Amino acid sequence: MISGKTKLIAHLGYPTESFRAPMIYNPYFEKHGIDAVVVPMGCKSEDYADFVKLVFRLSNIHGALVTMPHKVTTMALLDEASTTAQVAGACNAIRLDADGRLVGDMFDGEGFVRGVLRKGGELSGKRALVVGSGGAGSAIAASLARTGVVELSLFDGHEPSVKGLAARLRQAYPGLIVSTGSNDPAGYDLVVNATPLGMKDGDPLPMDVSRIDPSTFVGEVVMKTEITPFLAAARERGCRFQVGTDMLFEQIPAYLEFFGFRHATPSELRAVAKITY
Amino acid sequence: MISGKTKLIAHLGYPTESFRAPMIYNPYFEKHGIDAVVVPMGCKSEDYADFVKLVFRLSNIHGALVTMPHKVTTMALLDEASTTAQVAGACNAIRLDADGRLVGDMFDGEGFVRGVLRKGGELSGKRALVVGSGGAGSAIAASLARTGVVELSLFDGHEPSVKGLAARLRQAYPGLIVSTGSNDPAGYDLVVNATPLGMKDGDPLPMDVSRIDPSTFVGEVVMKTEITPFLAAARERGCRFQVGTDMLFEQIPAYLEFFGFRHATPSELRAVAKITY
Repeated sequence: MISGKTKLIAHLGYPTESFRAPMIYNPYFEKHGIDAVVVPMGCKSEDYADFVKLVFRLSNIHGALVTMPHKVTTMALLDEASTTAQVAGACNAIRLDADGRLVGDMFDGEGFVRGVLRKGGELSGKRALVVGSGGAGSAIAASLARTGVVELSLFDGHEPSVKGLAARLRQAYPGLIVSTGSNDPAGYDLVVNATPLGMKDGDPLPMDVSRIDPSTFVGEVVMKTEITPFLAAARERGCRFQVGTDMLFEQIPAYLEFFGFRHATPSELRAVAKITY
Repeated sequence: MISGKTKLIAHLGYPTESFRAPMIYNPYFEKHGIDAVVVPMGCKSEDYADFVKLVFRLSNIHGALVTMPHKVTTMALLDEASTTAQVAGACNAIRLDADGRLVGDMFDGEGFVRGVLRKGGELSGKRALVVGSGGAGSAIAASLARTGVVELSLFDGHEPSVKGLAARLRQAYPGLIVSTGSNDPAGYDLVVNATPLGMKDGDPLPMDVSRIDPSTFVGEVVMKTEITPFLAAARERGCRFQVGTDMLFEQIPAYLEFFGFRHATPSELRAVAKITY
């Protein structure tokens, strides 16, 4: 029940029609008696900088979830950004600290990493390949770098994206081996599809699945179907894997901790979520 | 269930802690499957003009409820204001029209008038006394003027308020007799307490109740208790009356019509409201 005492979490993006977070967070808040509400606000790019400033001056604002197309432009509006957000070059969560400063973090990659670890995937000391250096791939690479992987290979057809990400990773994590230029998955402990390939029928696979070793853990960011053609092929080779929505549900506990709310588990969140895929 | 398709109604005011509208509108919307939500936004005066402009550029905004301290300042931000809002000098509802223009109206007085008429009070051709020319009194006077009362007497200790209201009434309703300067209720068909007297224990009565005729209809704006000392005294004299919250619940159907939603009755709204007085 929304009242004037309810903590307001603005969900900033445009368009809003496909937003999923309100249908996960709000039933969760209601079930656990947390007096907070996630409210979609369809803010267009030309208004975004001004709107962020003003929405964070509301007396009942608690934070913001940031989604397309604002994750990158948010970086310039923050007073402080986590290392992960800096490496990803993007932010998907903003909160006000006690001094009125805007603090941002990025949890897309954190959700991916938590999912891998929960399923028994190992990361510390391992080698990972991330195919796709757009928003999802950059976030995943930034979070993988924190886990102690020894080598991170990046591939993207868009040269400036992959070079920029590699440079930010090398600067923040000088001990990490960062390579670019190949999407050959042979020999990696973790391979990730962070491209949109799999969204449309007839898309090619993002890499040569026949070269993935059965011991490799395979991750996917596409959420359109649970088992994408890429995951189906990896499963056929005997690989462990995680689906796109794991990244979504695994990142929400990280958001909740960032906003100072009760700890949640992904299975609790899946149980209350009013969404289907 | 809030989603990215839900129509957003901003509830603009500061502070927000005592807001009641969300606990009336939102249960009503939920009960009737109306995909809209009222969300308190604690906007301070110094940010208000900028925030109104930007909040009405959100793609999912449908309208705004306006409350203290913004009802008067909203007038300067509108592209179009109803006659009632112009006479009241204040606005408590804003919607976007199809051309992107901000249209404002004022329903505080409309709620009062609807309540009187529902209880069988007559207004057309009658004489009314409104004591208090602040926000509530101005709104009630503006709405009474539309009903066909022949005479409206105004009283307020603050001379500029009462003179300004009288001037606006005379300009908009040239046929209406408007007098000022006395709070003697003798001889009126309707008398209204539109002052805050009755909010605090020990407040004096707003007028000499012994001079109210038993045939007079008596109205109250104070909502702190159902039967204020003023209403108790009027009831003792045998007068018909309406309580402060009648004005609140009677105005909501007018708001809903303004926003283009399903018609509601005040009793439906009272039945679902999650508030007590």
